[in-house]
Amino acid sequence: MPETMAVRALWFSGGRLHLIDQRRLPGRKQIRHLSRVEEVAEAIRTLTVRGAPAIGVAAAYGMVLAARRPHGSPESAARLLRSTRPTAYDLFVGIETVRTAWVAGKDPLQAADAYRARIVEECHQIGEAGASLFRRRPRVLTHCNAGALATVEWGTSLAPLRVARDRGAPIFVWVDETRPLLQGSRLTAWELQEEKIPYAVIVDNAAGYFMQSGQVDAVIVGADRIARNGDFANKIGTYEKAVLAKENDIPFYVAAPWSTFDLKRPSGASIPVEERDPAEVLRIAGHPLAPARSPARNPAFDVTPARFVTAFITPGGVAPPRKVAELVRRRTPFGDVSNEPPKGRKTVERH
Amino acid sequence: MPETMAVRALWFSGGRLHLIDQRRLPGRKQIRHLSRVEEVAEAIRTLTVRGAPAIGVAAAYGMVLAARRPHGSPESAARLLRSTRPTAYDLFVGIETVRTAWVAGKDPLQAADAYRARIVEECHQIGEAGASLFRRRPRVLTHCNAGALATVEWGTSLAPLRVARDRGAPIFVWVDETRPLLQGSRLTAWELQEEKIPYAVIVDNAAGYFMQSGQVDAVIVGADRIARNGDFANKIGTYEKAVLAKENDIPFYVAAPWSTFDLKRPSGASIPVEERDPAEVLRIAGHPLAPARSPARNPAFDVTPARFVTAFITPGGVAPPRKVAELVRRRTPFGDVSNEPPKGRKTVERH
Repeated sequence: MPETMAVRALWFSGGRLHLIDQRRLPGRKQIRHLSRVEEVAEAIRTLTVRGAPAIGVAAAYGMVLAARRPHGSPESAARLLRSTRPTAYDLFVGIETVRTAWVAGKDPLQAADAYRARIVEECHQIGEAGASLFRRRPRVLTHCNAGALATVEWGTSLAPLRVARDRGAPIFVWVDETRPLLQGSRLTAWELQEEKIPYAVIVDNAAGYFMQSGQVDAVIVGADRIARNGDFANKIGTYEKAVLAKENDIPFYVAAPWSTFDLKRPSGASIPVEERDPAEVLRIAGHPLAPARSPARNPAFDVTPARFVTAFITPGGVAPPRKVAELVRRRTPFGDVSNEPPKGRKTVERH
Repeated sequence: MPETMAVRALWFSGGRLHLIDQRRLPGRKQIRHLSRVEEVAEAIRTLTVRGAPAIGVAAAYGMVLAARRPHGSPESAARLLRSTRPTAYDLFVGIETVRTAWVAGKDPLQAADAYRARIVEECHQIGEAGASLFRRRPRVLTHCNAGALATVEWGTSLAPLRVARDRGAPIFVWVDETRPLLQGSRLTAWELQEEKIPYAVIVDNAAGYFMQSGQVDAVIVGADRIARNGDFANKIGTYEKAVLAKENDIPFYVAAPWSTFDLKRPSGASIPVEERDPAEVLRIAGHPLAPARSPARNPAFDVTPARFVTAFITPGGVAPPRKVAELVRRRTPFGDVSNEPPKGRKTVERH
């Protein structure tokens, strides 16, 4: 196994879904073994598994577990899984892929395995498509974790950096810690350390300082949902980094598989943004960070307007925002499943 | 004592400097009692006392303690105190104020008391000067802590909000938590809670989200050093908030007493930025946030260009960047001490 494949977020075997408990990293590498769809829903809701492509694959296997139950209902399983988190589009695509196969009398496991393989392959293609962008821009800032942990293998934003490094580019990663849940310092730093890619953790507040002082050549992030016009939702703070990159003339890239593109949505204005428990802001590992009974707000995502995006890095190549919808439409689909939930089906949106 | 005066960062009595240990807040309100200049230097270095105006006053009393020692040397005491932190200009002004009095044979304690009283009065004047700006812009975002804890009493950025609230404005404060050391969630939230001013703590990443969604009417911060052209240094992340405020057409105010203005410095390019221990980024209260042996970078300040500042709020009134140096020059000085260290004296600058 090459170094770039050392980390894998989840796998299905022996009738169970196995996944790394991402809440425990980097302190402990604990594997959870799930045999019921309710457990998968809970794992997604609690961020035991997180990252848009990864929760799409986890949900696909959640549908498989539901289908194996006597009298399992595709509609109620899909409803349960859709209710877990509202922002990432991949979740709904993953659920829909297996639901469609199930109701058509096809093998749900085969559909989920194909979906998983498709995501892994698309991430690999993203790596190949984007690697050359960083050959002469090796000092790259990233926000949150869009690595293998977020996508099963390879990652989205980390895939081009992995491929560029393997081709000899002196990649160095500025890792935004990504408060409140520290997916940068806990997960991205862990992946980079596992693969011996040089990095430095910084607080989210310092990204602007390093951009302003000429120490950042490019920014790359993943996405949770991309609208037709190129507006996109991603982890809270992404919008801040995008505005700062533009202010400092630094290219800003967004890497995502097809399952993140929500082409029926004309712009980012209507993308649902999940607001999570304020306790995530007010405590770290049980330690209080603010006075008792402090009010807090905790939006988990923000929406970055397309004008801040230099280009999207997709499995089909690199495209600026005004051309990316066309690229998504004309892609050669993997297998027979589109990334569009069927018409008239409303996804659950919580605000 | 009115509610606005409930918090006091430090005071001198019985031959000792007493100060709130700001590292313990909000969990414990512990008072430290210092009787030697070395203890004052250590308290400044370790952020037991912090905030530009407050460390200036603490250092002034550190000089008093040195002067009371048999054979105490004004030069070596000043050198020790100057070596503690490089960025805040007030530190050097506070030291110089008492050193000048001491070498002129005047009473150091009288000089330090006068300096303290001047800072408190200037903060009060800042409150009066700035309050009306927020009457129709009551939802205000602030970064770090520039409250009473940072300035002895009143605060700089919080002073106009206190006065506006006391005059009936429905002030609501968005409190950036301010990683790495959480001066927002620990200290600003504590002060606001003590004074019953409504607020919500947010992660630094969420400031852009609340600006973009129209929930922030104005931004106000303090400063550690202001150059002649209006460029200014302040807590890391300030530059990010300033860029985001401009992008969203939100007024951005900087509140500071005269002691923060370094008029000999033409621009912010040469302001020394302190880089602190990476452990501050990698741990909270002993709890690791990243893999063991993670590299990290920890600049404590950034420099915001003047073009992002709507206006400075000073003891002499409100002025845009291009006029603020003139305002500082023509102020009526409090007492006989300028804010300029004497010519030829180089302040300690660490990078």
